[in-house]
Amino acid sequence: MSEKKPKIGILTVSDRASRGEYEDLSGPAIEACLREYIATECQYEIKVVPDEIPTIIEAIHSFADEGCGLICSTGSTGPARRDVMPEAMEQVCDKLLPGFGELMRKVSLDYVPTAILSRQTAGIVKRSLVVNLPGKPSSIRVCLDAVFPAIPYCIELAEGPYLEGNDAVVKVFRPKKK
Amino acid sequence: MSEKKPKIGILTVSDRASRGEYEDLSGPAIEACLREYIATECQYEIKVVPDEIPTIIEAIHSFADEGCGLICSTGSTGPARRDVMPEAMEQVCDKLLPGFGELMRKVSLDYVPTAILSRQTAGIVKRSLVVNLPGKPSSIRVCLDAVFPAIPYCIELAEGPYLEGNDAVVKVFRPKKK
Amino acid sequence: MSEKKPKIGILTVSDRASRGEYEDLSGPAIEACLREYIATECQYEIKVVPDEIPTIIEAIHSFADEGCGLICSTGSTGPARRDVMPEAMEQVCDKLLPGFGELMRKVSLDYVPTAILSRQTAGIVKRSLVVNLPGKPSSIRVCLDAVFPAIPYCIELAEGPYLEGNDAVVKVFRPKKK
Repeated sequence: MSEKKPKIGILTVSDRASRGEYEDLSGPAIEACLREYIATECQYEIKVVPDEIPTIIEAIHSFADEGCGLICSTGSTGPARRDVMPEAMEQVCDKLLPGFGELMRKVSLDYVPTAILSRQTAGIVKRSLVVNLPGKPSSIRVCLDAVFPAIPYCIELAEGPYLEGNDAVVKVFRPKKK
Repeated sequence: MSEKKPKIGILTVSDRASRGEYEDLSGPAIEACLREYIATECQYEIKVVPDEIPTIIEAIHSFADEGCGLICSTGSTGPARRDVMPEAMEQVCDKLLPGFGELMRKVSLDYVPTAILSRQTAGIVKRSLVVNLPGKPSSIRVCLDAVFPAIPYCIELAEGPYLEGNDAVVKVFRPKKK
Repeated sequence: MSEKKPKIGILTVSDRASRGEYEDLSGPAIEACLREYIATECQYEIKVVPDEIPTIIEAIHSFADEGCGLICSTGSTGPARRDVMPEAMEQVCDKLLPGFGELMRKVSLDYVPTAILSRQTAGIVKRSLVVNLPGKPSSIRVCLDAVFPAIPYCIELAEGPYLEGNDAVVKVFRPKKK
């Protein structure tokens, strides 16, 4: 009843949004998407940080320490000089999961040939799964549609909270226990 | 006649199997599969080790030093805390071959969406090709079917022994000499 | 009129070609291909170096310092002992772009199962995009067909020169400005 709701962290990485030069639309778009996909009632928190490796790492650690089973980031995954998310991921993650990036690029390629420029990845930090998502709301959904079915089981393997998928929207998969 | 048969090493990585808590079924499943795929008569050896990076590396080095052209491992490739095979691979391999993991994940995705959680890879250690396979016998075959056609030629490029494929089961490919 | 033409660097990595034991056919094949794909008049330079990491890195740095927006290499991406391009890339690149290698292996798999042995990748060095291509002229075209649509926009993101694609041959893609 009064059990603590699982926490989910959303990290918008953008110099301009962090300076208030424009409104963060990507973070709220991820939250809206996840609220649809996850049947379990969760507590969502959005942080907005500039494209700086130490700040990104600090934000991810802080989400992980607060017990977020899932941390979704948006932004800073391209080939430009200020795009540093993959470098932060390499430093902060205990394990990297290359299959997420491969699949997200593959499904995005059906829409734009520049999908190969994305350096999105995913990984485990302590007991949290961190997934890098694109910035554009429509692309966020394309990527989450592809990888979400594997996310709740991955969080379980990482010893995070149990999340129920919303069957009407997405089909979460868990292998049968041996 | 009394020529030395090529050696093949099989490495089961599992805390519980190494403690004898359950029987290793994956190692023998890989051996059975390879005996079908490889027409050349080979000598197979199975080692069972716990999910510990130094022990895994030692076992791979020992197989490589015994002249195994091919070393297939099973287990420890997921996102859980004790899954350390990819970290061992990064340390032990002279070269990593990302194309193996990409293709094994791709073909496994036709069966389960959690295929993206696998961190399987392959690489070269001295003159040996090391390939990480899944644990489930049916998944072992799915992955080997996909990558085996490239394995004998890869072993040749790594200066290992010549292996003949069993044409009735799998079509081994070797580019024509220039 | 007398504006400086954008520069493009082509790097043939081959012990034998660098010793003059055979003619470099791959470098000129890449140049011919790029001249077809790029409508902008460019200045092309081909360098031939042996399979040695420091020499490769030096050549890439020198192309980057001369302002080459695009640097295409050929050779040294396989699993053999002398194949060292990916190791040089890891050292020389400010950012690696795994999507290029994934897509080039994927399209090459339609021709040969040994495509998974290629360790081709791409990355950013200063303001230059470096792309590893295969050695065989027909394979060069297969790979460039797949990744070229994303190349001019990638060079822009890396703050390199503006390149116009030749619409009759390849459809270059640039996302609409936000």
